[in-house]
Amino acid sequence: MQSYRLNADLALELVKEPTPTPGRGQVLVRVKATSLNSRDTVIASGRYPLPPLPNLIQLSDAAGVIEAVGPDTTRFRVGDRVVNSFHPTWFGGPMRKVGRMYGTDIDGWLSDYAVVDENALVSMPEHLSFEEAATLPCAALTGWSAVAGVGPGDTVLVQGSGGVSLFALRFARTAGARVLATTSSEAKAERLRALGASDVVNYAETPGWGSLVRELTDDRGVDTVVEVGGAATISQSVEALAPHGTISLVGHLGGAGQGMDLMPLSLRFATLRAIGVGSRGDLEEMNRVLAQHRIRPVMDRVFPFSEAPQAFEHFAHGSRFGKVVISHEPE
Amino acid sequence: MQSYRLNADLALELVKEPTPTPGRGQVLVRVKATSLNSRDTVIASGRYPLPPLPNLIQLSDAAGVIEAVGPDTTRFRVGDRVVNSFHPTWFGGPMRKVGRMYGTDIDGWLSDYAVVDENALVSMPEHLSFEEAATLPCAALTGWSAVAGVGPGDTVLVQGSGGVSLFALRFARTAGARVLATTSSEAKAERLRALGASDVVNYAETPGWGSLVRELTDDRGVDTVVEVGGAATISQSVEALAPHGTISLVGHLGGAGQGMDLMPLSLRFATLRAIGVGSRGDLEEMNRVLAQHRIRPVMDRVFPFSEAPQAFEHFAHGSRFGKVVISHEPE
Amino acid sequence: MQSYRLNADLALELVKEPTPTPGRGQVLVRVKATSLNSRDTVIASGRYPLPPLPNLIQLSDAAGVIEAVGPDTTRFRVGDRVVNSFHPTWFGGPMRKVGRMYGTDIDGWLSDYAVVDENALVSMPEHLSFEEAATLPCAALTGWSAVAGVGPGDTVLVQGSGGVSLFALRFARTAGARVLATTSSEAKAERLRALGASDVVNYAETPGWGSLVRELTDDRGVDTVVEVGGAATISQSVEALAPHGTISLVGHLGGAGQGMDLMPLSLRFATLRAIGVGSRGDLEEMNRVLAQHRIRPVMDRVFPFSEAPQAFEHFAHGSRFGKVVISHEPE
Amino acid sequence: MQSYRLNADLALELVKEPTPTPGRGQVLVRVKATSLNSRDTVIASGRYPLPPLPNLIQLSDAAGVIEAVGPDTTRFRVGDRVVNSFHPTWFGGPMRKVGRMYGTDIDGWLSDYAVVDENALVSMPEHLSFEEAATLPCAALTGWSAVAGVGPGDTVLVQGSGGVSLFALRFARTAGARVLATTSSEAKAERLRALGASDVVNYAETPGWGSLVRELTDDRGVDTVVEVGGAATISQSVEALAPHGTISLVGHLGGAGQGMDLMPLSLRFATLRAIGVGSRGDLEEMNRVLAQHRIRPVMDRVFPFSEAPQAFEHFAHGSRFGKVVISHEPE
Repeated sequence: MQSYRLNADLALELVKEPTPTPGRGQVLVRVKATSLNSRDTVIASGRYPLPPLPNLIQLSDAAGVIEAVGPDTTRFRVGDRVVNSFHPTWFGGPMRKVGRMYGTDIDGWLSDYAVVDENALVSMPEHLSFEEAATLPCAALTGWSAVAGVGPGDTVLVQGSGGVSLFALRFARTAGARVLATTSSEAKAERLRALGASDVVNYAETPGWGSLVRELTDDRGVDTVVEVGGAATISQSVEALAPHGTISLVGHLGGAGQGMDLMPLSLRFATLRAIGVGSRGDLEEMNRVLAQHRIRPVMDRVFPFSEAPQAFEHFAHGSRFGKVVISHEPE
Repeated sequence: MQSYRLNADLALELVKEPTPTPGRGQVLVRVKATSLNSRDTVIASGRYPLPPLPNLIQLSDAAGVIEAVGPDTTRFRVGDRVVNSFHPTWFGGPMRKVGRMYGTDIDGWLSDYAVVDENALVSMPEHLSFEEAATLPCAALTGWSAVAGVGPGDTVLVQGSGGVSLFALRFARTAGARVLATTSSEAKAERLRALGASDVVNYAETPGWGSLVRELTDDRGVDTVVEVGGAATISQSVEALAPHGTISLVGHLGGAGQGMDLMPLSLRFATLRAIGVGSRGDLEEMNRVLAQHRIRPVMDRVFPFSEAPQAFEHFAHGSRFGKVVISHEPE
Repeated sequence: MQSYRLNADLALELVKEPTPTPGRGQVLVRVKATSLNSRDTVIASGRYPLPPLPNLIQLSDAAGVIEAVGPDTTRFRVGDRVVNSFHPTWFGGPMRKVGRMYGTDIDGWLSDYAVVDENALVSMPEHLSFEEAATLPCAALTGWSAVAGVGPGDTVLVQGSGGVSLFALRFARTAGARVLATTSSEAKAERLRALGASDVVNYAETPGWGSLVRELTDDRGVDTVVEVGGAATISQSVEALAPHGTISLVGHLGGAGQGMDLMPLSLRFATLRAIGVGSRGDLEEMNRVLAQHRIRPVMDRVFPFSEAPQAFEHFAHGSRFGKVVISHEPE
Repeated sequence: MQSYRLNADLALELVKEPTPTPGRGQVLVRVKATSLNSRDTVIASGRYPLPPLPNLIQLSDAAGVIEAVGPDTTRFRVGDRVVNSFHPTWFGGPMRKVGRMYGTDIDGWLSDYAVVDENALVSMPEHLSFEEAATLPCAALTGWSAVAGVGPGDTVLVQGSGGVSLFALRFARTAGARVLATTSSEAKAERLRALGASDVVNYAETPGWGSLVRELTDDRGVDTVVEVGGAATISQSVEALAPHGTISLVGHLGGAGQGMDLMPLSLRFATLRAIGVGSRGDLEEMNRVLAQHRIRPVMDRVFPFSEAPQAFEHFAHGSRFGKVVISHEPE
């Protein structure tokens, strides 16, 4: 099989190696597609806060087909279409200990094949393609967790047009919430409205967009902000927040250490919640919703496996609307 | 009746005025004791973030006796012993709008008498004195809310020996949690241990006490921190936190705008929750617990009504262990 | 003013009496419409489990206009459109004590005018007529509470076409759930589908409809049943339930004492929850949702005030689809 | 190794068979102790509601030592002391599907040795003996789940002196609740008080004990009843319940199909919750509490492995106080 490993020079190196055989309780997955998240580009840039093991196969998110099963497997059969859970051993309930993670502690998915414990996988929603399903483990589940508990009387603010934000928008709409969004171009605003945003605020034109969001919500503010900009945007997010509102904090693994003022948070009795993707149980709940509502991920661009380095480049530097995916299908 | 009003020079001025009569649904309370909170000294120092109305009676927390009832009252009878709810019109459920507050928007309790809507009061736990009960509306309820949801498998950290911290310590112990505390002197450490702290860390001797707290908890960290120091202590609090832990943020109405780094919070998937005291329903729940466990507030010092300004002075500048109270009983 | 009082012969007697004046904290409501619930017909039939006070004005649910305000009112102004909260003193949080109820302990709303504490009212959603809004206090809020916590991955079963069931259907759909319904005629099935039911089961044709519901949900069963039939239907409801599912039990004040078998409930690890309408805070949350989604109650029939007894008769004996309302507007 | 299998005549048959070898992800457990639950005697009596597979090793609860580990195991090392999770593949979150169960679908633990997936085990609390720890998987976790959410202001009622009831009593006390208990003898009442019951009601002397419990709680009733008697006791349990209280329904796999009246439940807005033991995550949470509070299970009697059939006999017919355990240690 062929895999991309991150070498000591922080380059993705294509290597050939023997395809492994599944042991008891394991399955062999023919990887069909993978997707990129900002964590991947942070790792590849050498700025990951905890130093990764050397020379690991990259990427945490994949979709594929069960090609062989080891003895004693009960969850899947050959031919089943699956996606992986982001945290391979966090099955449900509160996470008591951060376990091993793909691409930094154990081999990831940017490969033709992978052998994993069957407990690290879940069934793929039937209505999705592999390219679409490869976006679920991290970005979709983070968006899902970021709007957990949101209901039909709530108002949510999402920022920009990255994968997590667009999933959060869709999930919040599905749960009946009103969603406002920020962006920097009219073209993107149009697409955000088409996805269900009731109002789109241009943060480039209105740097103090927090108070504009308050105006758009009858001076009450929003109940939940999905914060992806970190220190750069959080003061406006707090400004946009209703009393007892929640900010779901996503990402920031490579963010500079700028600070957040605590007083405005106090004055709103607000909650700031750092999102940890989610458990396998959460992924299964989310997949039920994707299937029930036939939600399809928003795709920015699909790269062939041979152009994986270009996919990283595009993700890090391009203007995106939705997810960047790598197809592992033969070209 | 006599009341202390905060005049334009930020001085507490003792004024005589006619005692009001309760209207329909109202009661006349003979105030027996009041207590001080840091919010009161922030108001009195002119640093309150929202400008208060001029010349209001001060203090948000009181205990007293119903001396007369207006028509159509159903909750209380003459002679009932009561304490007030901190937010007079927040009865329960999520707070959707911050209402009028004592001492800044409406007259407070530093007076012989007050007339209020009967819905703004609850019954006093029977085992407490008026001086003790006067500490419940803000400090006790904030400590209660700061450890809401804590249970017998959890570990909690409280800071120092102010009113909120000591109440949080007691409530967390009552719910079965292990509690660690920080302080700066061995004498206070002794008293904290006597109140149920399993371990006390001297923050003066160990400025990097966050990692010491981790060591004391088998390198796991604590599940909940009751943060009263704001920007000055929050980085150590985050350091002391277990994965998916919670920081309950108390106070900070007058804190300088120093910042908090978001990344360590993200790496722990932590939650930061600004505490808004609590509703009347929360106060009633807390009082049931105080009564069931016969918990008595820790008293720092009781001042006579005639020395109310000295009580403010002591609160603002003295070293305290527990609550500062003003007795309204004749000397 | 004119009011209908329930006399000793269980007849609705139209009486003239002076219009009261609002005291402090009270408002005078010009009642514009009321609605009927099964509790009202149970009271009127003399089968209410707790004996009502004699000669009270009937009906628990109303919409109207503030016509005068007493001193010290802060929540409403003259001209505001309002609905009442079903439990006049349950404002939020858990209900610790069942308070006084309209029509059995205190005068209800079947009158031209009523004077109540302003805390017993909430604002009416702007998009509704008085006739529509009069259905909110009991039926809508019970339907809301019966599907509380339901989300976009859930499946819900509602029974028949009474007010509570139709509201539960609408609220569950708004929260993203799939909803199945039972009914006894194709005409009603058609209307249930138009309201958003994915599948309608004819319980007359299929007495063992529980297993049919399981089949329609891939043999998993539904997550929530809104049970309005009591002992007559509960065994089929349990049969239709998924593991760890919930049955929301509505009504039954006059039901005969037939029993429910506990074993099937145990085998599904199910929860049976008796619904107590909801608090004022719940009503406000629900109204936000009604307004945000511009949901309109389904009306069966509107009677003029002069035909109130006929409205009771129709409610008790007629075939209904939605709510039975009495208009208090001059004919 | 030696195991007891339940043969076609419903007799426990001692069989010799080869000790299995752990595969990838598996461990070999030297079983040190097992414990009995009412489910085991229901199976052994042939009255289990779903027909078990023939000839399986019996018992669902065990404690032991890891004697060998297969490849790729990460959770345990040789020498680790472990207990099993009751549901071997329910790791956390809501249970969506009832999986395979010990003694009815797969081999149980009444054997010298067992090979299981390492994910089916958790670490044993250090302060317990194997005999004590063998009581945790079903009885302790059921008691834990039955009082989940109970806190320091709550009042709980437990029935009798079986394993689940005594664990529920201890856990509720540890969480700060007041606990009342029912029993039929003064000797048992004495022991229940020693374990922390504030009041003990003799149900033999007072068949209508529900109203007595109400009196003992200031006419309010209890917040939670741990119901182990099923149809025989549930009407008194409902009578003892406070408004909005909860009945945790335990057991009933073999109970006769007598009915429960729904009306009293409705009048109290009560919740009836059938308890499904708990997930692996729940077991770990409970073990943290056992360890933190050094709680020791109450032991009725320990039988040697050679007298396993006598243990079943004693469990089914004897008067018990606490758990019945089988020691697998050589005599």
